[in-house]
Amino acid sequence: MVSQNQVMPAIPKHVPLYPDATIQEIDSCLHKAWDAFSWLRESPPALRRDLLYAIADELTGLGDNLIETAEKETSLPIARLRAERSRTIRQLTGYADFAAQGKHLDICIDTKTATSPDIRKMNIPLGPVVVFGASNFPFAYSTAGGDTASALAAGCTVIVKAHPAHPATSLMTAGAIIKAVKKMGMPENIFQHVFGAAAAVGEALVKHPLTKAVGFTGSYTGGKQLFDWGNQRLEPIPVFAEMGSVNPVYLLPGKLSAETEQVASLYADSISLGAGQFCTNPGILIALDNDCTKKFADILARKLDDVQLSEMLHAGIRERYDVLRNEALSQKGVSQLTTRELTEDIKRKLTNPGIPALAMVQADDFLANPVLHHEVFGPYSLLVACKHMDQMKEVAAGMPGQLTSSIMATEAECLMHQDLLNEIRLHAGRIILNAVPTGVEVTQAMHHGGPFPASTDSRFTSVGPDAIRRFVRPVCYQNWPDNLLPDALKNANPLKYPRMINGNMSMKPITG
Amino acid sequence: MVSQNQVMPAIPKHVPLYPDATIQEIDSCLHKAWDAFSWLRESPPALRRDLLYAIADELTGLGDNLIETAEKETSLPIARLRAERSRTIRQLTGYADFAAQGKHLDICIDTKTATSPDIRKMNIPLGPVVVFGASNFPFAYSTAGGDTASALAAGCTVIVKAHPAHPATSLMTAGAIIKAVKKMGMPENIFQHVFGAAAAVGEALVKHPLTKAVGFTGSYTGGKQLFDWGNQRLEPIPVFAEMGSVNPVYLLPGKLSAETEQVASLYADSISLGAGQFCTNPGILIALDNDCTKKFADILARKLDDVQLSEMLHAGIRERYDVLRNEALSQKGVSQLTTRELTEDIKRKLTNPGIPALAMVQADDFLANPVLHHEVFGPYSLLVACKHMDQMKEVAAGMPGQLTSSIMATEAECLMHQDLLNEIRLHAGRIILNAVPTGVEVTQAMHHGGPFPASTDSRFTSVGPDAIRRFVRPVCYQNWPDNLLPDALKNANPLKYPRMINGNMSMKPITG
Repeated sequence: MVSQNQVMPAIPKHVPLYPDATIQEIDSCLHKAWDAFSWLRESPPALRRDLLYAIADELTGLGDNLIETAEKETSLPIARLRAERSRTIRQLTGYADFAAQGKHLDICIDTKTATSPDIRKMNIPLGPVVVFGASNFPFAYSTAGGDTASALAAGCTVIVKAHPAHPATSLMTAGAIIKAVKKMGMPENIFQHVFGAAAAVGEALVKHPLTKAVGFTGSYTGGKQLFDWGNQRLEPIPVFAEMGSVNPVYLLPGKLSAETEQVASLYADSISLGAGQFCTNPGILIALDNDCTKKFADILARKLDDVQLSEMLHAGIRERYDVLRNEALSQKGVSQLTTRELTEDIKRKLTNPGIPALAMVQADDFLANPVLHHEVFGPYSLLVACKHMDQMKEVAAGMPGQLTSSIMATEAECLMHQDLLNEIRLHAGRIILNAVPTGVEVTQAMHHGGPFPASTDSRFTSVGPDAIRRFVRPVCYQNWPDNLLPDALKNANPLKYPRMINGNMSMKPITG
Repeated sequence: MVSQNQVMPAIPKHVPLYPDATIQEIDSCLHKAWDAFSWLRESPPALRRDLLYAIADELTGLGDNLIETAEKETSLPIARLRAERSRTIRQLTGYADFAAQGKHLDICIDTKTATSPDIRKMNIPLGPVVVFGASNFPFAYSTAGGDTASALAAGCTVIVKAHPAHPATSLMTAGAIIKAVKKMGMPENIFQHVFGAAAAVGEALVKHPLTKAVGFTGSYTGGKQLFDWGNQRLEPIPVFAEMGSVNPVYLLPGKLSAETEQVASLYADSISLGAGQFCTNPGILIALDNDCTKKFADILARKLDDVQLSEMLHAGIRERYDVLRNEALSQKGVSQLTTRELTEDIKRKLTNPGIPALAMVQADDFLANPVLHHEVFGPYSLLVACKHMDQMKEVAAGMPGQLTSSIMATEAECLMHQDLLNEIRLHAGRIILNAVPTGVEVTQAMHHGGPFPASTDSRFTSVGPDAIRRFVRPVCYQNWPDNLLPDALKNANPLKYPRMINGNMSMKPITG
């Protein structure tokens, strides 16, 4: 006779704490999300605002526990994590207010004329949205981040796939959202949360027929794969992927010579901020090949040699940074200007140190070598030295799509080089004058997106309340009597929404 | 010695009048379009308005010559062609006015605060747009149609691929545009015109790296192919294809019994209008399986048997109509209710007659057979008889994306079947109450698009001035002094554009 212990299967040594969702679970998720959507899409916008506020409250309620969990998983500093949670809460409440005011509905009414019927349109939500969190923003671009906030504000149900780099943070955040949904007495499947380290999970989520849109922030490889899956479906769906960029900085000679030290300081901070792990990190600096640029490069390199080192997010990110940086440094004509190397002393202090690096190359070599145009995710920047302003314009013209481009220039230089500025604008979603690209304000005027490959659709932003517009589409009511129209379109404007009426914006009722 | 005549090559018997553009010509076109774009994108919007007005004038100036050419190529009646040209002119001038007022720019300004920099965004044009004309609208959806008007209004240069069904009309229209561009003293390559009966021409146009967007109206097969090519590029681009639909009509029993004759008359006209060659033609009618519906079906069939026959656009369209209609009629459970057949008498009078047909099927058979969900382009409609209202809702839930859905219902029925109306709305871009879907008003509130497969992006319209937004993207200015901003974003608002300023719409200058 064998003891009970012997017939029980031994517990495997490496039970994954967060097992991948199975294909059956994903199918079940989407069906539940679709059912919940039939409730959510008809719910009053004010109720959705209350839900987003409740989520914000629950996130706050998680207190230091959430911050400490995120710190353990991401190695991001406590202060940064606190600031990021505050930003995430501002996103939730800000998008909620925007949507509750009907600003994302783009209501447009053309009243009946002698020759044309009454026609009224407004935006409605697309359906279940799958959200892929980002490794470098465990709050603001993850489980309760901008994609989730804008999808819920739009009236779409959400399924979040946790980023494998911070599963416990994601689970805790999801718990807060689920608690808020419950407190609001709403259908529980408005929001669902799954794990999936394997690509098959992402594929099944994107390809499921009931998925109607996708939000993603991360690498080009990841984002482009989701975009392709989304377009290969029988029914293609919008996949909004923000895939980062090199964020070129154009250093015009007048500005650089007048403020060499200040510009170097500003950019040493921007390049090394958060171990360079921002999609707006300035990865390419473009200047003229002259003595002033050499002086600037030297100051910048010394500053980067001196900045305090920080941990990168995880071993995978650090390894990839080391590989891509070394690949870039080994290209023809590239010389490294920083001198700091990985020492035993650094190894003792940090597990995954992000060693800042500045390299330099002549524009001729840069233009001839596509490898040098790739993003090196980390505290790295490449200074491209141009023979003359025409070559700087040539570099600008060859830039793939960017989230941001920055210009350091005097007023006189801006006026003189209008054609360069126009060329730069053609390749970027945001152009910054005499400041740094890192730091993305959450306001309506923000545009966080850009021509491919910065994002998969340059017409939409993933930051600011306009991000809601990614997840809605217009529907047009023709020839409906007032009492049968949705409240948003009724003559009396009971919800007090801004509306375009016969060509003019107004919040007034329609009379007569 | 041979005579000169003998050594000269004989003129081939079938020199194509409109030879396909070669790959080299297409490449040259796009380079020219790109060069012209660098001028057009910086041009003042008022100048682009003047260009669109000049094109409208030239179109008018072509007089009866244009109408007669189009009649020869399309067999469309003169009166319809005149009306279509008027509409085309209204599109050109209407979109021009809209853009000149800066309404498509979606200007949004958040002024500097204690914690946030000055951020201002506005839309800019995408780049060269390739336009594919439609066979059934030689003016309004073709060479100088809505896609061309909205692309030019946006500031994009345009390359039109003439529809092979009306090449002479297209060439004449292109001539008018080219003349207008010349009169305005603008770069001639703002607009270019190519022929291409072969798919390779379309492929080369869509896949060219300098093409930045595509507009198309036509079949699912054609539109989906362009969409796939657009997404297979190294740099995917937006391809807006409007691909038609079956435009279901939900006939609720109360309305149908109260106005059997009137509803039949209305829909006999709508089904047979223009030989059914509209993307909004009502191809599926859904009613309850009862005596009233049988009576309605009988009246409708008799009316369709009596309508005056008209020519279809060309032999290809007519042959395809015959094939698809016969395929539908041969499906399990489908019975034809109309009796008119192709007679020798009809053959003598018309070259490509579009014979109207009404068929009927039980909803069980309809739901089980995907063939019956396909569009039959022509004067054909299928009446689907449902056992009860729940089955009608099931039919609505199974509908693929539609440009339009229509509902014939009493007020009481609308109030009672809110869940059916919500389901219908989920699958359509426009919902029409107690009227017909044919007839697309060109106003801002119009939405001509819809969930896939009605269009490739449900978030955009191809009719009305909002169509301009397909071809623009936001760009954001951060930290720019007032004098270096584009006029549209300057504090003084010199162009008097509507702007969202710190959350409120205003045309006033920003002070202080």
